[in-house]
Amino acid sequence: MKDGVFYGKGVNKVKREYPEIYEALVKLDEAVFTGKVLEYRTQKLVALGITAARSDETATKRQMISGMNEFNITKDEIVDVLRVVLLTAGMPAFNKGMRILDEIEKN
Amino acid sequence: MKDGVFYGKGVNKVKREYPEIYEALVKLDEAVFTGKVLEYRTQKLVALGITAARSDETATKRQMISGMNEFNITKDEIVDVLRVVLLTAGMPAFNKGMRILDEIEKN
Amino acid sequence: MKDGVFYGKGVNKVKREYPEIYEALVKLDEAVFTGKVLEYRTQKLVALGITAARSDETATKRQMISGMNEFNITKDEIVDVLRVVLLTAGMPAFNKGMRILDEIEKN
Amino acid sequence: MKDGVFYGKGVNKVKREYPEIYEALVKLDEAVFTGKVLEYRTQKLVALGITAARSDETATKRQMISGMNEFNITKDEIVDVLRVVLLTAGMPAFNKGMRILDEIEKN
Amino acid sequence: MKDGVFYGKGVNKVKREYPEIYEALVKLDEAVFTGKVLEYRTQKLVALGITAARSDETATKRQMISGMNEFNITKDEIVDVLRVVLLTAGMPAFNKGMRILDEIEKN
Amino acid sequence: MKDGVFYGKGVNKVKREYPEIYEALVKLDEAVFTGKVLEYRTQKLVALGITAARSDETATKRQMISGMNEFNITKDEIVDVLRVVLLTAGMPAFNKGMRILDEIEKN
Repeated sequence: MKDGVFYGKGVNKVKREYPEIYEALVKLDEAVFTGKVLEYRTQKLVALGITAARSDETATKRQMISGMNEFNITKDEIVDVLRVVLLTAGMPAFNKGMRILDEIEKN
Repeated sequence: MKDGVFYGKGVNKVKREYPEIYEALVKLDEAVFTGKVLEYRTQKLVALGITAARSDETATKRQMISGMNEFNITKDEIVDVLRVVLLTAGMPAFNKGMRILDEIEKN
Repeated sequence: MKDGVFYGKGVNKVKREYPEIYEALVKLDEAVFTGKVLEYRTQKLVALGITAARSDETATKRQMISGMNEFNITKDEIVDVLRVVLLTAGMPAFNKGMRILDEIEKN
Repeated sequence: MKDGVFYGKGVNKVKREYPEIYEALVKLDEAVFTGKVLEYRTQKLVALGITAARSDETATKRQMISGMNEFNITKDEIVDVLRVVLLTAGMPAFNKGMRILDEIEKN
Repeated sequence: MKDGVFYGKGVNKVKREYPEIYEALVKLDEAVFTGKVLEYRTQKLVALGITAARSDETATKRQMISGMNEFNITKDEIVDVLRVVLLTAGMPAFNKGMRILDEIEKN
Repeated sequence: MKDGVFYGKGVNKVKREYPEIYEALVKLDEAVFTGKVLEYRTQKLVALGITAARSDETATKRQMISGMNEFNITKDEIVDVLRVVLLTAGMPAFNKGMRILDEIEKN
């Protein structure tokens, strides 16, 4: 778990104040992204799809940014994930995802 | 959109009784799964993650079965998706996914 | 609030064992369905859309049945609500709604 | 589908960059809001209820504004929808809807 | 129901403009928080957990603030609720809760 | 984490086939339910509220049963949690919770 990258500043705070939670998060993160067969990159796309399908603005933005920075996930790959969001979670979630992606691109 | 495989019997009914909805679904399906960069298979894994994260039992089961039948998605790949579900949607959704996978395996 | 029709048997139990909750439900129900401008029937369609969009099987079924019995809401009106569910909540919720409607029709 | 009205600026971007998704959205929109029996206006109220029940702030605001502008849906009709949201989705979603409506009114 | 504290300004507006809804809310609030066995304070922690698990930012913030002000719920008690959110609703909801708590502390 | 009690049979399977996930779950469980200030029992009530608010039938049932068996949580305490569910998540989630509780009682 790369501090300050994937989970943001919040994790540093947890590490300092609630070390036992932090330790569990590290273990959890290892267990999750140590997939036996799928690449970490594919799992990251799944995580992105799940947060976008929920219309959770800040979490979706964070997933997109860390996906782009850490795994060189491209804009078109994210749009391909958002297509699945459109089918499985509907228009409002898709629209929100497209808007967030657009805002990230402009910055 | 392969009738009776991905969307189940429901789609045939829609086709017969509400052809304009059916036509839109076909168009939608084409637009969604005609990803420019990601493989259809990866998009299917994303769809599986989204439905499992929602704890929707019948939809998750359907996604698992069609993923296995149409794309030869393996059990371990599904578990790798469920690891992401555990991290992003919590234990109850993960448990449900594991149980559904187990039931599919036994049949 | 018509006992045993809209809310099912559960309400009778609440009435008997937790009268103060029951009383609040009656008040709530009155306040909700005493819309100043929209008809009760239209509000019922909105309730149906909300439960179907959540993929909640038992609640959706109950809403469909009570809508049909109490307000003569037709099958095609329910399909029109499910079209909105498709757009705003995606394919799995739409499919589930269509399947439930189909099962109700066959009984 | 009226560009820039219902779906906001996002749709224009989709139209330009992902024409095949845009085309599917147009088809979908036609199939959804070409209800056989319910009026488009009633379907719009259902869409409003679904987004408000999910506490999705931006989507709810957009639905309220387009409902008011395109269909002359009144404030009291929206409150009647929010009453159903209160019953089926609870106080926080109702409160959020009332607050958004209030902010729209003041602008 | 303490106006302007728990439900915010919105309730005052409802009281003035839609007295029948307000009355139902008061009844509902009484029935809910007049638990026979659990303390109001414990119920408040449950309410906090439910809103945080949904990643609803404004509702979670409101619950935390009113919990702290009205019931002297401490920061560590809220973190203990967020631990349960981590287990049952996943990392994004937990992160959001921790961030909101952090922002409240700093003000 | 008591095998076969809280998480059901699924955990045994995870332990056998995916030991690294199991280990992470144990760590997570420890970190979550080792609250510094709140009792485990109160955290259990929060977990129950979260799953009931989501209308997840199997997860809610499991939480109720393990709460009753492991912590002697009473029926009336569960109803007090469901009151909060009624307020924060609406009637359908409340009804479902009451029905599940009723079924457990009868067995």
